[in-house]
Amino acid sequence: MADILHRVGIRSDSLQDVYNALTTTAGLAGWWTSNTKGEGDRVGNIIEFRFGAGGFDMKVAELEEPSRVVWELADGPQEWMGTTISFDLKQDNDFVIVMFKHANWSEPVEFMHHCSTKWATFLLSLKSLIEDGKGRPDPDDIKIDNWN
Amino acid sequence: MADILHRVGIRSDSLQDVYNALTTTAGLAGWWTSNTKGEGDRVGNIIEFRFGAGGFDMKVAELEEPSRVVWELADGPQEWMGTTISFDLKQDNDFVIVMFKHANWSEPVEFMHHCSTKWATFLLSLKSLIEDGKGRPDPDDIKIDNWN
Repeated sequence: MADILHRVGIRSDSLQDVYNALTTTAGLAGWWTSNTKGEGDRVGNIIEFRFGAGGFDMKVAELEEPSRVVWELADGPQEWMGTTISFDLKQDNDFVIVMFKHANWSEPVEFMHHCSTKWATFLLSLKSLIEDGKGRPDPDDIKIDNWN
Repeated sequence: MADILHRVGIRSDSLQDVYNALTTTAGLAGWWTSNTKGEGDRVGNIIEFRFGAGGFDMKVAELEEPSRVVWELADGPQEWMGTTISFDLKQDNDFVIVMFKHANWSEPVEFMHHCSTKWATFLLSLKSLIEDGKGRPDPDDIKIDNWN
């Protein structure tokens, strides 16, 4: 098993603001993909994320407001099956620290390398959304390679 | 053991240009840190990378011009001891694909999460250097959290 790990720090004194960006349709559409449907604020809900090339359906697996959000892939690309995504938030002085994990990849395939880099850009998009009021969700996302 | 993985695609028809950016002082100073000393073009050489907060000495462990570069940490932070860093390059139509691995972390510590995100920004800096002639090496690097 292999995991993608990231850490970003967002200049904010509000865990709740970051939690909201991870659990509301408007929040998620502001940093990951503009084409987001569903509410992420209740365990068991399905959130539909769509991109130009496809998408992911995530089941909200765990919520600890305002510090933890966990999703399980409900439907999506084969390589993502069985993986989970978690966001753990904590306040550290002037920053909300986001500890991110996309866990349980069965193999460290080339697509996992791509997704690791791509997640970094989306987490920095989340940071921009909270700090500056504007993220870079798909289709305005940062392109990293020939796949996107 | 845990690994950091990334993939970027650089619009270029020259593996050699990217290889040079990974093996010359000027190249490395153009995307990772402006304060780079040593030549990375010979196995066994030590390259000294310095940042505001500290630095790394890398031993060139393996070279396959123009498609593979491997470094071993010679000196640096405790968490990096025993780790290796590799860059594998391949041409895919209009792109040079960089497969990056920072391997063999003994534990997935918080600093590893930070370094994963930070590597993404530096690899995108390498992409900018080749595509646009200008990267974002330290101290002009993208700040991701309260650690840098």
